[in-house]
Amino acid sequence: MTYCLALQLRDHLIFASDSRTSAGVDNINVYSKMFLFEADKDRFIAILTAGNLATTQAVLSQIQRDLDNPHAEESLRTVDYLFDAARYVGGISRAVQAEYEEALTRIKSSAEASFIVGGQINGRPHNLYLVYPQGNCISASPAAPFVQIGETKYGKPILDRVITPETPVGDAMRCALMSLLSTMRSNLSVGLPFEIAVYRRDTFRLERRTILDQDSDLLKEMEESWSAGLRQALSALPRFEWEEDTVLLRDASRQ
Amino acid sequence: MTYCLALQLRDHLIFASDSRTSAGVDNINVYSKMFLFEADKDRFIAILTAGNLATTQAVLSQIQRDLDNPHAEESLRTVDYLFDAARYVGGISRAVQAEYEEALTRIKSSAEASFIVGGQINGRPHNLYLVYPQGNCISASPAAPFVQIGETKYGKPILDRVITPETPVGDAMRCALMSLLSTMRSNLSVGLPFEIAVYRRDTFRLERRTILDQDSDLLKEMEESWSAGLRQALSALPRFEWEEDTVLLRDASRQ
Repeated sequence: MTYCLALQLRDHLIFASDSRTSAGVDNINVYSKMFLFEADKDRFIAILTAGNLATTQAVLSQIQRDLDNPHAEESLRTVDYLFDAARYVGGISRAVQAEYEEALTRIKSSAEASFIVGGQINGRPHNLYLVYPQGNCISASPAAPFVQIGETKYGKPILDRVITPETPVGDAMRCALMSLLSTMRSNLSVGLPFEIAVYRRDTFRLERRTILDQDSDLLKEMEESWSAGLRQALSALPRFEWEEDTVLLRDASRQ
Repeated sequence: MTYCLALQLRDHLIFASDSRTSAGVDNINVYSKMFLFEADKDRFIAILTAGNLATTQAVLSQIQRDLDNPHAEESLRTVDYLFDAARYVGGISRAVQAEYEEALTRIKSSAEASFIVGGQINGRPHNLYLVYPQGNCISASPAAPFVQIGETKYGKPILDRVITPETPVGDAMRCALMSLLSTMRSNLSVGLPFEIAVYRRDTFRLERRTILDQDSDLLKEMEESWSAGLRQALSALPRFEWEEDTVLLRDASRQ
């Protein structure tokens, strides 16, 4: 499994992912799940992948092949809208899945994959799309300014509570990291290193890319600070009525 | 869907659940998902349910029927170990599911249900079991002092970070509530009111039962306090190196 997410802020897009892939718990590898296209000056497109690794690699390979081919009918270079890029990725994904679906169903496995396609094409707003295994897609919106793929549930509550288009980019990056950390802590199939990429609108190139692995002091400090902060938030919650006595006793014992 | 959880503390068991059941989003009802057996002086047994409502109701009906029947071969009244209670519930559940499985599979639905069986039988430790749809079960342990059924993922990170057998009972109840609230916020199928029941070991009766609905001021205060606390925890996290300038600018703007 995998967990990738992307946030849509007023002036930025943030892409974050773990790097663990596995074919069963005894076969765990580290692959980057981010594909960044910033070769052309009029567009920046990031693709994040989750699901069957053979499918996602075949899809990325086809995307690269189309970019290398100056006569390709369609590629990340030719699309006019980010929606077209998402539709294009979804189409390749569906074709790859169709090729292996029967064989994989026979061994009770699945060729399914999902993608986040985000970025900006000159003259259009920056945006994010979630591409489903069926090839269709939905975009992020100011009311729902993030998309997730893979193991999405553990890390969703923190995003639901915090992320708005106005969240400052540093805070949003920290929030994305905490969403990844919480997921990793609760689910073995999501693992370090974490990758975070930041795009600032109208620049058409990556602004920042950070990779945090198990030796990262920053990550350790964040994990400790977050655990302490959560305990503090919990202990600041209002008491139940029946606890009044208990609280008084606690206070008394402090004197 | 549903979300139920139970925590095993040194001296207490805490049972918590939402109350929403649905057969599709246009058919939503409120049912209690807690069944409490405290009629006998030598035992306290709580059963929490998730999954197909017809299955869980049929299971609870059979449990009650066995309790009403003084000649029943096995019931919550006759079992010697809590494990036997869990195995007994799992057996009834499997039998009920078997009756409807084929008809439900035909309409791409499922008869599956899962249960939390917790409590204490005199002379034995207090304990919790998670009963799978297949009827087998696992118990909580000091290293994993909680069990969850239903929509479990959204609310797991907070439990993973906070709950140990030594967590004070009030804090553990708050943590269970936050786990429920986070799940409700991220998933429409989990809804108010929330029920929380507390058992203190060696008492063989319920110590406390709280129902919190949408009119609950406590719940509103908790929700606000928790959101504020999370934002505070986030803003207390260490900065990225590249933010140093930004921070200085922010500080300067405050003067």
